[in-house]
Amino acid sequence: MPVFLDADAPEFEREFTALLASKREDSVDVNDTVAAIIADVRARGDTAVIELTERFDRLALTPETLRFSEAEIDAAVAQVPEAERAALELAAERIRAYHARQMPEDQSWTDAAGAMLGWRWGAVSAAGLYVPGGLASYPSSVLMNAIPAKVAGVERLAIAVPTPDGVANPLVLLAARIAGVDEVYRIGGAQAIAALAYGTESIAPVDKITGPGNAFVAAAKRQVFGKVGIDMIAGPSEILVIADKSANPDWVALDMLSQAEHDESAQSILITDDAGMAREVCAAIDRHLETLERRKIAAASWRDFGAVITVPDLDRAVTLSDRVAPEHLELCVAEADALSEKITHAGAIFIGSWTPEAIGDYVGGPNHVLPTARSARFSSGLSVMDFLKRTTLARMSPEALRAIGPAAEVLAQSESLEAHGLSVRARLDTLNKG
Amino acid sequence: MPVFLDADAPEFEREFTALLASKREDSVDVNDTVAAIIADVRARGDTAVIELTERFDRLALTPETLRFSEAEIDAAVAQVPEAERAALELAAERIRAYHARQMPEDQSWTDAAGAMLGWRWGAVSAAGLYVPGGLASYPSSVLMNAIPAKVAGVERLAIAVPTPDGVANPLVLLAARIAGVDEVYRIGGAQAIAALAYGTESIAPVDKITGPGNAFVAAAKRQVFGKVGIDMIAGPSEILVIADKSANPDWVALDMLSQAEHDESAQSILITDDAGMAREVCAAIDRHLETLERRKIAAASWRDFGAVITVPDLDRAVTLSDRVAPEHLELCVAEADALSEKITHAGAIFIGSWTPEAIGDYVGGPNHVLPTARSARFSSGLSVMDFLKRTTLARMSPEALRAIGPAAEVLAQSESLEAHGLSVRARLDTLNKG
Repeated sequence: MPVFLDADAPEFEREFTALLASKREDSVDVNDTVAAIIADVRARGDTAVIELTERFDRLALTPETLRFSEAEIDAAVAQVPEAERAALELAAERIRAYHARQMPEDQSWTDAAGAMLGWRWGAVSAAGLYVPGGLASYPSSVLMNAIPAKVAGVERLAIAVPTPDGVANPLVLLAARIAGVDEVYRIGGAQAIAALAYGTESIAPVDKITGPGNAFVAAAKRQVFGKVGIDMIAGPSEILVIADKSANPDWVALDMLSQAEHDESAQSILITDDAGMAREVCAAIDRHLETLERRKIAAASWRDFGAVITVPDLDRAVTLSDRVAPEHLELCVAEADALSEKITHAGAIFIGSWTPEAIGDYVGGPNHVLPTARSARFSSGLSVMDFLKRTTLARMSPEALRAIGPAAEVLAQSESLEAHGLSVRARLDTLNKG
Repeated sequence: MPVFLDADAPEFEREFTALLASKREDSVDVNDTVAAIIADVRARGDTAVIELTERFDRLALTPETLRFSEAEIDAAVAQVPEAERAALELAAERIRAYHARQMPEDQSWTDAAGAMLGWRWGAVSAAGLYVPGGLASYPSSVLMNAIPAKVAGVERLAIAVPTPDGVANPLVLLAARIAGVDEVYRIGGAQAIAALAYGTESIAPVDKITGPGNAFVAAAKRQVFGKVGIDMIAGPSEILVIADKSANPDWVALDMLSQAEHDESAQSILITDDAGMAREVCAAIDRHLETLERRKIAAASWRDFGAVITVPDLDRAVTLSDRVAPEHLELCVAEADALSEKITHAGAIFIGSWTPEAIGDYVGGPNHVLPTARSARFSSGLSVMDFLKRTTLARMSPEALRAIGPAAEVLAQSESLEAHGLSVRARLDTLNKG
């Protein structure tokens, strides 16, 4: 049974706090196993990767077959039906257009003291993208990770996608090709992360690794962080829907189930100012749970982590939603634009009843890699910024140094950093002599 | 003795690779100790923080004296000499002006399909800044962390600064006041990080923690990451100077020593196309090492990690510098602007001989918190972006859903996510009936 809370009930604050604190994932401690795999790949390179792939994926590779050849990708891609190819291309085009607008600008200016200041953005040279194998091998995730990298200007983009028993997903390969991925390796797990971070004889190292994965992949990403950059470690997905009486309860039910069907640890929360809506949405969910293909997963998620909260008014819904800081926030209310402006913490907002969250998963344009587990309070979804870095620029003229150098000298002395002060003083002395 | 390398020598590649791979820091494993401290603070709140502060800082506090009162700050600040106050204010003003230009803009637009798309930036609600006590208690670091947070719009900014034996640095308190910090706590170590991340009876939790610290602080930041956001874990500082025959060897020597004096693990590298310049810089370094106040630290850094590389031309210097991806890059060459444009990987570039790195530490304007240990390949210095997060926005019109919904449905089916497809289909069916 999902949790039913009434924001006006005396025990509400305690129950809502418990809901916020509920842990939805048991993180298995695989750190030692992963550390051993990384050390092995660093020591033995290709040989280790090949042995581990044979053990975990039951696939015998050679240094030559670690990477998909262009001919293999051609053959796989040719199997994709036209409707799916067209859908992927539409999605790619929209994702590209959205992310192109995120490109930040370089700046430089000369200030009143005569100092030229500014910064310059540059792309990471090489990035690696992890794509899970098996059930969770989503071509949409390939687009969502690879396109921002290519828009940012990453020159070399490599994918690691395990192919257990040699079975590859043609849609993943097509998505990689559409996104402009340069290299696709049929390896997975911690060994793939280690190979991307440290390189092997056949796989050149990258500077940044992104993409979702299981506990081994997540632990490996944490361990190689510092040697390379990584994106966030994603937790189970979640949606919060705010609905008023104008909402369509069947649509809301399907939107909540589209989170629940991802994963037994996913979470769907409904907040509404209409008790009748709450009942109708629950009834619709129960009805769909009788027939949904993934009903076992969706029912477990709804039973264990689902929540329905009734509130006296929508302002209260906003306050509660901000405390959740949901990954996905859907506003199925009459005045959706106005409500949207009141929201402070959310990964992505889907405004109005015509915007199902599933649009954002595929073809909306914004990224579907979003902050989970309340981290929208302090972090953002994937973007071109994850593949860019900023170099700050400063150039003093002699006049600028004369104007601001003495203050630097004073502060250096106050921090007992004599050489810092002397490096300024030596120049000022030359100026004063000249 | 620092390392001397000649880029034309047969063994150069091997030696340069070894220089890149050299580890300058032994990371002590304090994870278990830190985990116990965090658990203790979570369980016992103020009581744990007070006991740990008594043990580590020999300072007896109460819940009421954990935080500096305004009167205490007034009294401390009144002791600061006028020259230092004026220097801090000049620095703050310049840092504020630089970071104000970093504020990104919100965007929204309606595309050809009729979809409204965009994003909105918002500030983290509350941030915590760690300031080390003792020798490394730098008021400039308070400005460099606190000002970007306040420019970003962080409402509540708290500082934790240990005061061993009750000794506080008045300049740190003045910097906090100038930067607009809201709360200053006299606590440090892992217990301070735990208190900021999880809160206690007297300290409200924050959403993001930044700032440098010792091994315990760094380990605690790693452990609370996820519950809150953190900035990078900084390694020892480093500078790379590219100099040609136009450079002043004494200035270059002082610039290199101003890194070396920070820390025995700091690194200073000179790359020059002029063997005479290499000799003169080394001679000047040796000369200053006889008198410098922090000569013991600077000499150890120069001896253990210093490097001088001679190259046939400056293009080669650029290539090697990019492989180092230095935190600080100083261009003491005649054509400094042109050379600057060829650089791909650096945290900050100081252009031309009139721009000593120390200017950037204090009063230049750009942030002095920069990526160390070659991480400028994939990361950036501290900025307002560290205190902002992006919420993506999408609103479909019925027409937009009709245009792009079917592609989402196709992709949902190809990923076996039925409810995703149904959430789109239910709306399209209503449209088609209507």
